[in-house]
Amino acid sequence: MKGVFISFEGPDGSGKTTQLKKAAAALREQGYDVLESREPGGTVLAEKVRSIVLDPDLPINNITEVLLYLAARSEHVEKVLVPAVKAGKIVLCDRFSDSTLVYQGLTRGLKIEELTKLRQLNEFASNGLVPDMTLLLDGAPEVLLGRRDARGVSDRYENKGLDFQHAIRNGFVALAQAEPERIKIVNAEGDEAEVQALVMQEINSLLKKVKA
Amino acid sequence: MKGVFISFEGPDGSGKTTQLKKAAAALREQGYDVLESREPGGTVLAEKVRSIVLDPDLPINNITEVLLYLAARSEHVEKVLVPAVKAGKIVLCDRFSDSTLVYQGLTRGLKIEELTKLRQLNEFASNGLVPDMTLLLDGAPEVLLGRRDARGVSDRYENKGLDFQHAIRNGFVALAQAEPERIKIVNAEGDEAEVQALVMQEINSLLKKVKA
Repeated sequence: MKGVFISFEGPDGSGKTTQLKKAAAALREQGYDVLESREPGGTVLAEKVRSIVLDPDLPINNITEVLLYLAARSEHVEKVLVPAVKAGKIVLCDRFSDSTLVYQGLTRGLKIEELTKLRQLNEFASNGLVPDMTLLLDGAPEVLLGRRDARGVSDRYENKGLDFQHAIRNGFVALAQAEPERIKIVNAEGDEAEVQALVMQEINSLLKKVKA
Repeated sequence: MKGVFISFEGPDGSGKTTQLKKAAAALREQGYDVLESREPGGTVLAEKVRSIVLDPDLPINNITEVLLYLAARSEHVEKVLVPAVKAGKIVLCDRFSDSTLVYQGLTRGLKIEELTKLRQLNEFASNGLVPDMTLLLDGAPEVLLGRRDARGVSDRYENKGLDFQHAIRNGFVALAQAEPERIKIVNAEGDEAEVQALVMQEINSLLKKVKA
């Protein structure tokens, strides 16, 4: 069997990292060879780039930030993701190109029809690699953040922060509506087991198609 | 007066760094405010990127290399070059976009008509900034290398090295032929004073036009 590449997307707090781990465990129980990864990262060089791009003491412009994320992605795709897919693995990746479109595009004032340049850059950096399926863990920011913080939406998430969370959500949902075949919206407002059931339903449905 | 942006291009050994310094000194004597810079570099972040991209212990693919150079360029353009041009300075830069087209493009098997993607990336990273003039320091590799090493072309420049030097020269010349208005070929085979005279002739001719 040729491998499968699945990305997990969504805002921080959507539970995607947890759900990715649970999916990996479930798939391994089914006998699959699974690789878990995340962006940016995965190679020595990509980790060095990560340390630059995430350094709060280094002011960075939007274009430089995009190019550094893409440089890390190019490494990750060539050295980690493509070899794993070729080896027949199920590759689960925490964030991929869609995060770039949302965080460096849609939440910075670009409209979905203005993403052409960013899409071209993504394609260049990922050498054309597109996920076979993207799971978008989606939910109302008030619910997702409330779950992360049992006290509810505390004052750490003041108005501006919440507006930003809404912009992130709207961005991901717009991408999913434009590519419903690839990007599956998973309701992430339920508890871990409920969300896991939805995630595994989508993954198993993909694997059935791939084998057919 | 609006500033002027001039890039110096050519292979290592063409004397462009020396000629840039001499031109800066001559222009300052004429009373101009001159900024000397080089790529990659010019900001803290760009220097960090430089240390990654030039680290011989970090194997790097062509695409990642391009993206890192462009990330450094984006920083340099926004924080150094554009402000200096806006302030009315004469900006002299050791290497710019044409080096990317030659070193990451033409010497790696791309033909000049296949550079579209690299040109788009350059434009994205440099936010549309194009040199008002580019001085290409050109000469036969055998002459330039021979001058650098008084013993002539020593065995350090074995056949493969010399072929590569020819590919670099041919690449730059092809770019100059495609954009003769911007890229001026300067014969760099003469001694320093001869080359300086040619360089200053081109620069003074540009400055006359700009003032007119």
